[in-house]
Amino acid sequence: MIRVLVWNEFCHEKKSDTVRAIYPNGIHRAIADFLACDDIEVRTATLDEEHCGITKELLAETDVLIWWGHMRHGDVPDDVAEMVRDAVHSGMGAIFLHSAHHSKPFKLLMGTPCSLTWRESGDSELVWVTEPAHPIVRGIDRAIFLPHEETYGEPFSIPNPDRVLLLGSYSGGEAFRAGCLFSRGNGNIFYFQPGHEEFPTYHIPEVQTVIRNAVRFLAPTYREEIRCPHVRHFGDPEGYVIKK
Amino acid sequence: MIRVLVWNEFCHEKKSDTVRAIYPNGIHRAIADFLACDDIEVRTATLDEEHCGITKELLAETDVLIWWGHMRHGDVPDDVAEMVRDAVHSGMGAIFLHSAHHSKPFKLLMGTPCSLTWRESGDSELVWVTEPAHPIVRGIDRAIFLPHEETYGEPFSIPNPDRVLLLGSYSGGEAFRAGCLFSRGNGNIFYFQPGHEEFPTYHIPEVQTVIRNAVRFLAPTYREEIRCPHVRHFGDPEGYVIKK
Amino acid sequence: MIRVLVWNEFCHEKKSDTVRAIYPNGIHRAIADFLACDDIEVRTATLDEEHCGITKELLAETDVLIWWGHMRHGDVPDDVAEMVRDAVHSGMGAIFLHSAHHSKPFKLLMGTPCSLTWRESGDSELVWVTEPAHPIVRGIDRAIFLPHEETYGEPFSIPNPDRVLLLGSYSGGEAFRAGCLFSRGNGNIFYFQPGHEEFPTYHIPEVQTVIRNAVRFLAPTYREEIRCPHVRHFGDPEGYVIKK
Amino acid sequence: MIRVLVWNEFCHEKKSDTVRAIYPNGIHRAIADFLACDDIEVRTATLDEEHCGITKELLAETDVLIWWGHMRHGDVPDDVAEMVRDAVHSGMGAIFLHSAHHSKPFKLLMGTPCSLTWRESGDSELVWVTEPAHPIVRGIDRAIFLPHEETYGEPFSIPNPDRVLLLGSYSGGEAFRAGCLFSRGNGNIFYFQPGHEEFPTYHIPEVQTVIRNAVRFLAPTYREEIRCPHVRHFGDPEGYVIKK
Repeated sequence: MIRVLVWNEFCHEKKSDTVRAIYPNGIHRAIADFLACDDIEVRTATLDEEHCGITKELLAETDVLIWWGHMRHGDVPDDVAEMVRDAVHSGMGAIFLHSAHHSKPFKLLMGTPCSLTWRESGDSELVWVTEPAHPIVRGIDRAIFLPHEETYGEPFSIPNPDRVLLLGSYSGGEAFRAGCLFSRGNGNIFYFQPGHEEFPTYHIPEVQTVIRNAVRFLAPTYREEIRCPHVRHFGDPEGYVIKK
Repeated sequence: MIRVLVWNEFCHEKKSDTVRAIYPNGIHRAIADFLACDDIEVRTATLDEEHCGITKELLAETDVLIWWGHMRHGDVPDDVAEMVRDAVHSGMGAIFLHSAHHSKPFKLLMGTPCSLTWRESGDSELVWVTEPAHPIVRGIDRAIFLPHEETYGEPFSIPNPDRVLLLGSYSGGEAFRAGCLFSRGNGNIFYFQPGHEEFPTYHIPEVQTVIRNAVRFLAPTYREEIRCPHVRHFGDPEGYVIKK
Repeated sequence: MIRVLVWNEFCHEKKSDTVRAIYPNGIHRAIADFLACDDIEVRTATLDEEHCGITKELLAETDVLIWWGHMRHGDVPDDVAEMVRDAVHSGMGAIFLHSAHHSKPFKLLMGTPCSLTWRESGDSELVWVTEPAHPIVRGIDRAIFLPHEETYGEPFSIPNPDRVLLLGSYSGGEAFRAGCLFSRGNGNIFYFQPGHEEFPTYHIPEVQTVIRNAVRFLAPTYREEIRCPHVRHFGDPEGYVIKK
Repeated sequence: MIRVLVWNEFCHEKKSDTVRAIYPNGIHRAIADFLACDDIEVRTATLDEEHCGITKELLAETDVLIWWGHMRHGDVPDDVAEMVRDAVHSGMGAIFLHSAHHSKPFKLLMGTPCSLTWRESGDSELVWVTEPAHPIVRGIDRAIFLPHEETYGEPFSIPNPDRVLLLGSYSGGEAFRAGCLFSRGNGNIFYFQPGHEEFPTYHIPEVQTVIRNAVRFLAPTYREEIRCPHVRHFGDPEGYVIKK
């Protein structure tokens, strides 16, 4: 059983009738609802819960964390962001959605500003598959069509991704690295661009497929603190390697 | 002085009035003309010359090879393609333009089919800079606008590039990795997508800038056959490392 | 069930008493024997069989090919090497062991000479894990100790690997990228350095663990010829994307 | 003229007779002395200066920063580490030497713990060139021999480097990625492992050569804050791209 935690800022849904009409119970509940299945169990947490609803214990019991945030990145305490970063280092998978490119934990994990260009004009977007054999795009034909999305543009100041799986192109002309894989310590990270709160992006089946695939791909097979042990001399009777 | 060799199939220009009107002396001469400058000297070679105009000696005196081909990839003899591959291994830089994605030497160097999807409908294209600090895009603002280009689409079956410097988006909706860096042996390779023969792409100043930058970036600082020497035991008085 | 094909040159075992004493039925049978289990079924093929024991049909029914060769790389026909390359492009996994770094199919897939330095002096080797969370090294502690191995040294003229999972260091002083991942088309490739025929390397449990892990990691989840279709205009009523 | 700033913790040299005997004026002065030449000018700064001797203005006038630290990483204020990180994002090159793998700015730029295993037993080390054509190893033969170094071992918890240029192997048996390139924003980073304070590593000509080469390689050709501008609609008469 893969244990997923969906974290959502959960602010737009409370403030905007438009957003609430699309996600009446919040983006986190919408994601939790389509993810839950025989091999995936889902919990949720939100910004206004105590300590953002996140504890070290909860993260230790989480295989894959999904993060959505936008207008209140700054209200996530630094120590919460650092707990998320450290859990990824220990092997937790993490999916950062859309405007979470500017969230504190994503920026800590990338080591770059993670800035991009953007405009809101209701462009349509095609999200093209560049690596058709990758498990994260299984079940996706050549592209996903999104009738409306916020437009994101390059340069997206991330480190060179380990793999770019998806490229977005917008009716207004921009192109964007829409699906990027990174590894940090023992954990793997997937950035996935679709998901502006004013459009029903997370109700689109192919978007759900990519997120579900990513959950299964990122679920750790190994979980350990990264330590910095002293290592004795190879050859030392009590040393590490000599046990051979 | 950087020594460039521009190789062109030089067939469309002879067969098509449209193409000849754009490149009266051939694509190779157009490229040679805008490249030649104080620090770059240019020679050209074409398919119909003896042995494609290529010899091992010529390649040994070439710092950067530029390759344009399309309709007659199959007429390049295998040993010519292999000479080009080997010269890259020895440190020669190589720029493959547009439909040269399917040329023999490019495929030999990539180890993949290098296929892509395409259509000819005169789309416009925006070529976006993803890595604004890279020397190859110096002098380019956020994007290059091409009024008309052949449309190339993903999946482009290349190995994961060392760096994707440019992304193309087309008015018809496709996205494409338009500028990709690879290294092979001692040499570096740049694939650059613009340049359909029916449009005056190589007359566009920004396209010329990218190619000129790439020539300077790819010019080798090191040139050597890759050998497979025997190496003696470290510790051996006559061995390799012990000479320290 | 993962379908593995172990290909072995099977020459040293016939010529050398030393090698035959270690692998009485050939390296291929030794590998087949430790691999076969509930989820892995294994077939073998060798150089002296008709057409090297390889057909297009057999490769189409193979999930992961394992290749060992050394003294007779040149006797593998080009079309066999090309069939292997094409099967990898279509999604077959491939593991190249030890001296298979210079085999025809590996070189075709890499696009480089794949040369290295080497000497035979019976050094011991430590193969260190650089990415402890990767599925291919699951069950391996910090290093594998090999009492004797042929010594391989850098520079190993391969393209920049997608991931270096293991580093070898030899008692004579060399270091070597001993476990490297690459993707080519729809298939993934693992190069694994241990396995000189004169030492019982494939009888060492940790070496077997890495190969078994690699089989499971490389088994394709997707298998398709890479095509180069025409794609119609987005917006065209009969076009590809417009079906949305 | 390339403007280098060498930053040194400058503690061991004050506390230990052994270290002071090797670097009487500090490691920073030793590095500054061998670097200064016609095209490189060098300034230095140390931990005990006000604000670590670092200001935003100074970094803005620095092309390449070299950082050595070990026992007092924690005494570097967070805002100094963040200034360094931001300067790299804006295009400044950075070389982190030896134990600076655990320095605050390096960890901020990597997004990982940057831990490793280590022991101090005076092993000798061979630092092998994996990419002989790279400008950073120009002038280095196959390996650099260090009679004594602190032993660093894998796993080194860094993100997958853009390029691994050097591999270290130690007489005690470890292997280590000794020379790693990364890019972050507009800046490039080189991690170089040699340089334990108790051995005269920075007096070895080949070590000096690598550092000098790295300075020239990392010196920026582009320097700009990474901004997050609004971008208007392509097609908008006043928009960005339409100026074409």
